[in-house]
Amino acid sequence: MAEKIATASLSPSAAMKLAISEAKKGHGWVSPNPVVGCVILDHSGNLLSTGYHKKLGGPHAEVEALQQIKDPHKLKGAHVFVTLEPCSHFGRTPPCAEALAKLPLKEVTYGLLDPNPKVSGRGAEILRKAGITCTGWSEILREKTKEIETELNELAEIFLYNQRQQKCFVSLKVASSLDGKIGMRSGESKWITGELARQQSHVLRAQYDAVMIGKNTFLKDDPSLNVRLPSYEKHINSVVILDPRGESRAKIESSKLARVRPLEKIFIATLNDQNISGTKDGGPRVLRIRKTSGGKLDISDLLAQLWTNEIKSIFVEGGAHSFAGLLAAREFQRLHLFMAPILLGGAHGASWTQYFGGEKMSDLLALDGTEPTQFGRDFYFSLKPS
Amino acid sequence: MAEKIATASLSPSAAMKLAISEAKKGHGWVSPNPVVGCVILDHSGNLLSTGYHKKLGGPHAEVEALQQIKDPHKLKGAHVFVTLEPCSHFGRTPPCAEALAKLPLKEVTYGLLDPNPKVSGRGAEILRKAGITCTGWSEILREKTKEIETELNELAEIFLYNQRQQKCFVSLKVASSLDGKIGMRSGESKWITGELARQQSHVLRAQYDAVMIGKNTFLKDDPSLNVRLPSYEKHINSVVILDPRGESRAKIESSKLARVRPLEKIFIATLNDQNISGTKDGGPRVLRIRKTSGGKLDISDLLAQLWTNEIKSIFVEGGAHSFAGLLAAREFQRLHLFMAPILLGGAHGASWTQYFGGEKMSDLLALDGTEPTQFGRDFYFSLKPS
Repeated sequence: MAEKIATASLSPSAAMKLAISEAKKGHGWVSPNPVVGCVILDHSGNLLSTGYHKKLGGPHAEVEALQQIKDPHKLKGAHVFVTLEPCSHFGRTPPCAEALAKLPLKEVTYGLLDPNPKVSGRGAEILRKAGITCTGWSEILREKTKEIETELNELAEIFLYNQRQQKCFVSLKVASSLDGKIGMRSGESKWITGELARQQSHVLRAQYDAVMIGKNTFLKDDPSLNVRLPSYEKHINSVVILDPRGESRAKIESSKLARVRPLEKIFIATLNDQNISGTKDGGPRVLRIRKTSGGKLDISDLLAQLWTNEIKSIFVEGGAHSFAGLLAAREFQRLHLFMAPILLGGAHGASWTQYFGGEKMSDLLALDGTEPTQFGRDFYFSLKPS
Repeated sequence: MAEKIATASLSPSAAMKLAISEAKKGHGWVSPNPVVGCVILDHSGNLLSTGYHKKLGGPHAEVEALQQIKDPHKLKGAHVFVTLEPCSHFGRTPPCAEALAKLPLKEVTYGLLDPNPKVSGRGAEILRKAGITCTGWSEILREKTKEIETELNELAEIFLYNQRQQKCFVSLKVASSLDGKIGMRSGESKWITGELARQQSHVLRAQYDAVMIGKNTFLKDDPSLNVRLPSYEKHINSVVILDPRGESRAKIESSKLARVRPLEKIFIATLNDQNISGTKDGGPRVLRIRKTSGGKLDISDLLAQLWTNEIKSIFVEGGAHSFAGLLAAREFQRLHLFMAPILLGGAHGASWTQYFGGEKMSDLLALDGTEPTQFGRDFYFSLKPS
């Protein structure tokens, strides 16, 4: 790929956009690290190489990009673009800032500062001390940089939230009709959105450590919940079943969930007064969650237990009870809403918010969102609580 | 306005777009005529004048534009753009095609052919016989013309439907939350969308002969339903109340509806076995509609009676019963759907489709729509039944 587009020089915006799209290839493979992409241009602005953080514990994006350059002379006066500030500490790999500082680079432009206040800005400092110009994207004041800054923040959204809040990031994914229905009250359910939208929801699914569903969805649909995309054959995500009374337990071993992942990647979140077997015998993991005064699963305790179990982000795919719990607790950071251009009607249709909401209009839940995009005939909204 | 932008020459696309935006100024004033806009460029492509059909019975757009040109020599080699084929018959005014044919024009480009098969193409023929190049927009094969063709068709949508189907054009206007709610089941209702969206719904309202609501909405909200936009102070639209048993009748004279329009502009659509006074005594007009086997208002008969009462288009603003009747009968040509970025929830919220829909998912109502736009924070979808 690098060879093909090496003929034309790239603008800083084009280079950072390319770094962002490189970064995205890492989704699903690097958590709890962030996905990171890197692009290196030579002294004339021609593309030398690209790289991304491919695997937890593996080389960082900068190293991946550097490794592709066979002739080190080409790095003289080069400009490195990386979506996140080069690291300054020894983690699973040696610090990238120091590796870069030894090279005859002219400039490094990074997308976001490291969110960890203890090391934030240190990587940049190391580079500057070595005489390399080092600039954060937010310092670049050009027309198009705002849009790219938003993209950079969304790219690292889960990582930033994890670092700052020390808490599991929660996304809701809904596919509804234009009138908010996700199926029929009879229990009938079918794909509502088209193939492109469903494919996009697999792209999103890959970005989360676990998919979460309610026990009704598990018992009724017996879904696989894996990422069905060409480059994700070997990807294994976790699944969490919200199941206060452990009704799913007996069916786990024979389910499709267990066909595509080991049992220890399946979590059943029950009330802590239930006595459900699991965990010890190599079976599914049982999370015993505190009971609220209303007798429900305490969402804070659930998220805390997911966090200690290395689940830093969840992608909640329904059903209506699961959505209601998280909406009511305001415990979600993003809502991915796909809407098919159809009406199902409320006479027999079931709404995804049917168990949610207050008695007054002022109890509304406000969201922020930019313009929706289209996948095939379906509309897609990416929203955040206001 | 013409003077200000007369310095730069206009491309055909820019000229036709300007003609379209001129045409829109006629919304609300020319029905059952279509809105039409006209732009005249001189031999070098500079703007000479613009015009639009301002008033039923008044001059057509071409005449309006010609009247602004004081020096007839400027018309030598001029290029006229008009959104609809110049008329060839004597109606309320003499035929425009003949007026144009007498001028030293070089070219006329029209947006759409006259939909009346008896006269379609005749205006163009008159012009060609006079040695003037005359081209329809669909014959112009350039990248951007497709988008403009869509705009031209939407501009004349109601007129084209009226001409072809000889039937009243029905639009539904809905302002809902992202989960399809328009208020609470308790009856509480408030503005859901923001000011810009509400303003846009007045722009739409102006395009229809009448606004239609159900009797519940009338009795509960006592709305005015007039067009509250700066240039529409003198505009008077009609209102139709769907009211099988005539329960609104006693309140009409004291309603806000009657404060902003004469009583004869208010229609009450009742079942034909009801004996509601109106019409004769200078009061509101009562339409006695056939009863369906289910005891409801027969939608076909309603639309037929509106048509004979010179109501060629209606803008249906709810509530849920009115929507349900028209959705179930598939008797609507457009759905204007505004969605606020909020969730109201189904636990207590009321859905605009709550009385609509079949028992199976395959009973869905499919719609066609292009990308939504935003008015302030709200999303706007313009949809048609597939």
